[in-house]
Amino acid sequence: MSLRSFLLGRPIPNGEEEEQKIGPLSGIPVLGLDALASAAYGPEAALTLLLVLGAASLHYIGPLMVAIVALLLVVQFSYRQTIAAYPDGGGSYSVARENLGTKPSLLAASALMFDYLLNVAVAISAGVGALVSAVPALFPFMLLLCLALLALLTVVNLRGIRTTGALFMSPTYLFVGCLGITFAVGLVKTLAAHGHPQAVVAPPPLPASTATASLWLLAHAFANGCTAMTGVEAVSNGVPLFREPRTRNAQRTLAAIIGILVTLLLGEAWLCHTYGIGATPPGRPGYQSVLSQLVAAVAGRGVFYYVSIGAIVTVLCLSANTSFAGFPRICRLLALDGYLPAGFAHSGRRLVYSTGIIVLSLLSAALLIAFGGVTDRLIPLFAVGALSAFTLSQAGMVQHWRRMGGDKGRRYRWVNGVGAAATAVTLCVVAVAKFTEGAWLTFIFIPLTYTLLRGTRAHQARVASVISVDKPMEAGTLEPPVVVVPIKHLDQMVEKGLRFAMSISSEVHAVQVRAHPEECENLEARWPAQVEQPLRTAGQPVPKLVVLQSSYRSLVDPLLGYVRGLAAAHPNRFVAVLVPEFIERRWYHYILHSHTATLLKMMLLFRGGPQVVVINAPWYLRERRRRPVGIATSPRTARSRASGRRRGSTRSPAGLA
Amino acid sequence: MSLRSFLLGRPIPNGEEEEQKIGPLSGIPVLGLDALASAAYGPEAALTLLLVLGAASLHYIGPLMVAIVALLLVVQFSYRQTIAAYPDGGGSYSVARENLGTKPSLLAASALMFDYLLNVAVAISAGVGALVSAVPALFPFMLLLCLALLALLTVVNLRGIRTTGALFMSPTYLFVGCLGITFAVGLVKTLAAHGHPQAVVAPPPLPASTATASLWLLAHAFANGCTAMTGVEAVSNGVPLFREPRTRNAQRTLAAIIGILVTLLLGEAWLCHTYGIGATPPGRPGYQSVLSQLVAAVAGRGVFYYVSIGAIVTVLCLSANTSFAGFPRICRLLALDGYLPAGFAHSGRRLVYSTGIIVLSLLSAALLIAFGGVTDRLIPLFAVGALSAFTLSQAGMVQHWRRMGGDKGRRYRWVNGVGAAATAVTLCVVAVAKFTEGAWLTFIFIPLTYTLLRGTRAHQARVASVISVDKPMEAGTLEPPVVVVPIKHLDQMVEKGLRFAMSISSEVHAVQVRAHPEECENLEARWPAQVEQPLRTAGQPVPKLVVLQSSYRSLVDPLLGYVRGLAAAHPNRFVAVLVPEFIERRWYHYILHSHTATLLKMMLLFRGGPQVVVINAPWYLRERRRRPVGIATSPRTARSRASGRRRGSTRSPAGLA
Repeated sequence: MSLRSFLLGRPIPNGEEEEQKIGPLSGIPVLGLDALASAAYGPEAALTLLLVLGAASLHYIGPLMVAIVALLLVVQFSYRQTIAAYPDGGGSYSVARENLGTKPSLLAASALMFDYLLNVAVAISAGVGALVSAVPALFPFMLLLCLALLALLTVVNLRGIRTTGALFMSPTYLFVGCLGITFAVGLVKTLAAHGHPQAVVAPPPLPASTATASLWLLAHAFANGCTAMTGVEAVSNGVPLFREPRTRNAQRTLAAIIGILVTLLLGEAWLCHTYGIGATPPGRPGYQSVLSQLVAAVAGRGVFYYVSIGAIVTVLCLSANTSFAGFPRICRLLALDGYLPAGFAHSGRRLVYSTGIIVLSLLSAALLIAFGGVTDRLIPLFAVGALSAFTLSQAGMVQHWRRMGGDKGRRYRWVNGVGAAATAVTLCVVAVAKFTEGAWLTFIFIPLTYTLLRGTRAHQARVASVISVDKPMEAGTLEPPVVVVPIKHLDQMVEKGLRFAMSISSEVHAVQVRAHPEECENLEARWPAQVEQPLRTAGQPVPKLVVLQSSYRSLVDPLLGYVRGLAAAHPNRFVAVLVPEFIERRWYHYILHSHTATLLKMMLLFRGGPQVVVINAPWYLRERRRRPVGIATSPRTARSRASGRRRGSTRSPAGLA
Repeated sequence: MSLRSFLLGRPIPNGEEEEQKIGPLSGIPVLGLDALASAAYGPEAALTLLLVLGAASLHYIGPLMVAIVALLLVVQFSYRQTIAAYPDGGGSYSVARENLGTKPSLLAASALMFDYLLNVAVAISAGVGALVSAVPALFPFMLLLCLALLALLTVVNLRGIRTTGALFMSPTYLFVGCLGITFAVGLVKTLAAHGHPQAVVAPPPLPASTATASLWLLAHAFANGCTAMTGVEAVSNGVPLFREPRTRNAQRTLAAIIGILVTLLLGEAWLCHTYGIGATPPGRPGYQSVLSQLVAAVAGRGVFYYVSIGAIVTVLCLSANTSFAGFPRICRLLALDGYLPAGFAHSGRRLVYSTGIIVLSLLSAALLIAFGGVTDRLIPLFAVGALSAFTLSQAGMVQHWRRMGGDKGRRYRWVNGVGAAATAVTLCVVAVAKFTEGAWLTFIFIPLTYTLLRGTRAHQARVASVISVDKPMEAGTLEPPVVVVPIKHLDQMVEKGLRFAMSISSEVHAVQVRAHPEECENLEARWPAQVEQPLRTAGQPVPKLVVLQSSYRSLVDPLLGYVRGLAAAHPNRFVAVLVPEFIERRWYHYILHSHTATLLKMMLLFRGGPQVVVINAPWYLRERRRRPVGIATSPRTARSRASGRRRGSTRSPAGLA
């Protein structure tokens, strides 16, 4: 079994496509981890900003979360319609393309791609960061761990959607289960204690207030909390992943994800309020995440605590996976529309869009290496991409309902209009609040991607228009090519090349460039007896031997000059250069090669001009034992071979005329 | 002017080879910097080890240096004869090969190569280390500075020997001049003060003695001091660099280098003794190099002090250059003997052995990156390589004189025999003393290189014996190839490919692999009108259209299968696969390509078998305006073109039969 088969599994034939599809149960781990994991950092991000208010922060977290949940429900409503209207997936990109035009759709696509890319880097580095803070001995290997996790996610995703779903299902439901139990127990305890439960492990006291709540502070906290909304678009993007009825299945998955997320967010806000849990200053000694405080307060630091924390860290790591499901599908749609090379639209060995997966993996690796595995600073950039996509998608839906018309259309248009306005305002708040924290990077990356997409399409269109044909093929008397065979030594490899050259043209030039005279065989002396005479005897045209001196020790330049000269002398004919290539049995033997052949081929292709064609004739070590290819077997030889000659004798020339 | 011309200068023709040679004045900076720079660290290395003796260390440094100088003179005597006997250079390798046989010569070569490689890494990191300790703000950029300096040295050396000599002459002679003046002034002051001069800046006091001098301690100090001997073999290695009379010039250069080095070593030892200067513990606060203490003691910390220290640091950095002169020449000799690929023997654009220079640069960069730019720990490894080479070279000379015979031969044999014994003993002391400090690495690297050299030769010999021919070329009735043209869309690029295919064979198969059916043109519908009919009208053979389905979405596998099937069906014929290639105008446009063509070419070459030949036909954007290549111009068309038709009209087919 090859390494590739071991890592990726057997290739899946086209016919099994339907069997690779998933239902809502697998859909949540495949497409929902990004959204669910935001429960671990969204409320905390808001609480961190409210720290300056001291204990008063707990009064604001409830309303803030309700506002975010309201926005989330509007977004869900919108994406529910999107899924029904665009069952081929693509989410914001498809909606914007159909309803708003090319430019907004590419903007949505760029925003989504940036969001997915950031998600991979941030999720992996957050997960590894949590692991390293638990096991400080791993600190020097942080970047390596990040890259290993990335490689693992890449391989799992290349193995196909079903593998991903099966593998990620248990940590996902463990995470949901642990938090669900925590909230349920907390609820029971709170009710039993008439609203004032006693914490099993008391959370650290909140600092004294140093500021009062201003509108800007609350807006900023709201913007921070909106990171909880990222990842919601993934389902609308990946509708074709679901088995039939796919629209229903996708809608159910989206509803389940949003339902769980809303429960988690509201439960968290409520328990924080009743248990008096706020954020702790991040990056300082004594830092403890909100969820950790919460589980410890409700259930104490027993086995349950460690299982829950383990599940949270795992889900943080795996939330990168949503990008691996979403990014390649966006790329596929862009490629189908010509905005990316066609390779992004091709499903690979396991029916996933391998090119997109690999490109996402490489870009994330670059991002992780550039930031040394610590990408905390990228978290603020997150929400910008997601909120841009939400806004464009809802604006597109407004247009969609307008076209639909009718009573339902009018009502839905209003909902989406309000939603678009709300996400647009939120986007402005986030962009302004986070600009100096790094959101300006978004304003570089998104336009850059946008330009790249448009440039690709323009280039492909130009090329297609230039090479397309509409009239019948031109047919005339075809002239055979002039063939040039570069020779250093006269050996079996070169003889094979000459044989092929003579089989396609009667005009063959064997060219020896004396770049390093001390190593060059004196071909003039050997040529007549070795080549000319046997060919003349057989009545065949004889290749012409040309010796070129190279006063600058370059092999390529004199040969290129000679080939161009031939092309100019025969403007109607092809000039074919035959480059013999030795095929080694082991890859590492290529280290011993001079790679002049590779350089020569490239220079001839790129600088030879339209008349020059490059022919590559391989020579394998085992060929010594073979009868030479290209020479016809005459009946006489066939007879004599049939009458009992052995292997060794086939080395002698057969079928001489 | 291209970037290459700007960096490397115009190409130098073969005729100017003699003008590129150097005399002793340039020879010292080109080949002697490694040896001369050792004056900066050899005595210090010995003194550092003697620190435990306190002030008593000063009694031993004189005798130790005398012993090292004596060994150096024996080595010089030996290399002087080597230069005369082997004017083609190669030093220890050539001597060992001629007199001791293959194995010792490869051992000597491996030792020298390792020594040269280490020298680059250590010299650069020592120089940059000195710079960084002077300007601590540069600390984060240490590795980058190392690599920049390495790149600079690489470019300078690729520009040729004369550039190197001219550029490095002034720092070299400034270094020699500064130290010479220091020693002269010190001598005068000492004599004037009757042996007890007063230091201008007093050196730090020596620590109290904590041990007594044991034989092992002295042997260890001697071993440390022997790092002063590295770099001495470079002249014997680079004899062909000198202009005629090259033997005399090389011997003079060697004598000058050894003369200066001996003066520096003895002067340093003597001044240390009279001024009471010992080493300071390295790597601790208050560390000061011995030369820095010495210059300050003799001349104070004025302008002269800073100029001297600047010259010392510069020479430390530039001492890496000796390797750039020596390593490529060893590689060249090895390549001429078949132990390395032929490319190492080829002189490049500026008449230096570019391959060797580039390989040395890459290996050093890898070493610098692996050690993060701090290679102090590699210094002990140094002497092992150099002393192995010395020992083998002198043992070879013993054999040489034995073969020569005569009275002179007998006398010289004794000198070299004693020298070989002395360096062998020193080698053992160094190896034992330094084993745990990292010298064990030597015992991995040298055998590894040795194995690699032998493996290369064996592989090249096997290949040569397999492909060589001694009997006349086989000539028989040549059969034209079967040509396969993979097609996705029918466009001008493909039509050009079909034209070439039809010009070389009447049996052409146009193969469409439906890997991604949604993007494939329905060729069957278009083929008759577009291709078959015009060709039939013109009375030409018609390519056969073959459509292959790919149930695993691979383009390469079905095509490879089809090609192999054709090869099996026509065992005597070549199967040529024509791969059209779009030539972009900008390199970055290749990012947009799917690179399937490249993959296809590789798979066909490596796994197609001996009958398969790959044809690469380029298509340039500008070709649209050209008359199609490959179709003969009939006299009628030529006339009509001559009678005033314009460029645009040449697009129409010309010369239809």
